[in-house]
Amino acid sequence: MPAPDATAATTAPDNAYTPTDRTVPTRARERASYDRELVHAILDEGYVCHLGFLRDGAPVVLPTLYGRVGERLYVHGSTGARPLRMANGAGAEEPGLQVCLTVTHVDGLVLARSAFHHSLNYRSVVVHGTARPVTDPAERGTALDALVDQVVPGRAADSRPANAKELAATAVLRLDLEEVSAKIRTGGPNDDAEDLGLPHWSGVVPVARGYGAPVPADDLAPDTPVPAYLTRL
Amino acid sequence: MPAPDATAATTAPDNAYTPTDRTVPTRARERASYDRELVHAILDEGYVCHLGFLRDGAPVVLPTLYGRVGERLYVHGSTGARPLRMANGAGAEEPGLQVCLTVTHVDGLVLARSAFHHSLNYRSVVVHGTARPVTDPAERGTALDALVDQVVPGRAADSRPANAKELAATAVLRLDLEEVSAKIRTGGPNDDAEDLGLPHWSGVVPVARGYGAPVPADDLAPDTPVPAYLTRL
Repeated sequence: MPAPDATAATTAPDNAYTPTDRTVPTRARERASYDRELVHAILDEGYVCHLGFLRDGAPVVLPTLYGRVGERLYVHGSTGARPLRMANGAGAEEPGLQVCLTVTHVDGLVLARSAFHHSLNYRSVVVHGTARPVTDPAERGTALDALVDQVVPGRAADSRPANAKELAATAVLRLDLEEVSAKIRTGGPNDDAEDLGLPHWSGVVPVARGYGAPVPADDLAPDTPVPAYLTRL
Repeated sequence: MPAPDATAATTAPDNAYTPTDRTVPTRARERASYDRELVHAILDEGYVCHLGFLRDGAPVVLPTLYGRVGERLYVHGSTGARPLRMANGAGAEEPGLQVCLTVTHVDGLVLARSAFHHSLNYRSVVVHGTARPVTDPAERGTALDALVDQVVPGRAADSRPANAKELAATAVLRLDLEEVSAKIRTGGPNDDAEDLGLPHWSGVVPVARGYGAPVPADDLAPDTPVPAYLTRL
């Protein structure tokens, strides 16, 4: 086994997802990446994904929370929610729901002199695969903690864990990170040479997610301190 | 025709989208809305949607820009991009691509004492329908302006319009707002009564989109003023 340093600088198969027919874009291929660390970093910066699946042969896209544990993503919901029922085998031959899970961060508005070259700076990850119900109690516990910690790292340990009734009402699905790609745009506008003399302002407006001061619940005891994991956000 | 005031306060059919089997959620129905103004307001606050469609029978979800003009949404892309080629009839009987277009704004992290009652405050809109190629030159122009102005209102008029070559390379799809629903969560955590004495902080962390100071392009003349539509953002 090579020392870690020997492989860190290369794109060895271990460090990248294998491209497939549907993870290679038809255009702007230079923006695509299969780098595992990069994919993880994009996923770890978010907590809301857009989950696509089929209902009666038509696409449905719903926003939902996700959590990452190594090479696994978890989503969850009420056992009565449609995609979770579908994944559990309602009307299907075997448990599992074919999905596409997408996470997107917008980093900047790219304003070119020409309308045509306007763009966004962004980082996105697209995962294709089959989401399968998680039934092992230990894995379900890990997944539910990850879903809370994905939103606020450190929060799972500072909340009451799910009880038996709540666990019975919650379905958890797992999607393995196998067929995965990232897509990234960075930098300024790419105006055509003949447009550089036009009078229009051009450049990038940075976009970022911001958090406001935590607002305590009406029923929270007034002397309850704001935890460090919130002031860190 | 009644005076505007006579209908403004009611939910007359004109003011709401008609619910359908797939726009009525299986749970948390009290969060769903079909109010036209509310749907418009949610759409107008964003510019990135997640577009779901089928490829070889499997769902694909891609982030892309959109623009709203009245009861029409527009998306665009290279004529070579897959969903745009598919909508144009490649391999299909008639032009049009079955899609689900979803827009989501996260407004707050909702931290309850129990892990189970953790949630997000959010506003989302889901549109189902068939996206069809726009070929009328005037409508294509309107759509392309709307796509730019959706990101930065006022920018379309302050940039070079697409020329013939650029127009030939750009496909525009239209999705009518007919089968539409919004979903909204607001307010604090809903902890169970027996959990109110637990020591965990509870409440809401507000989340908002923030813009940084505009960064001029490297090739921009140094004396170019930052336009008012950017300082307003």
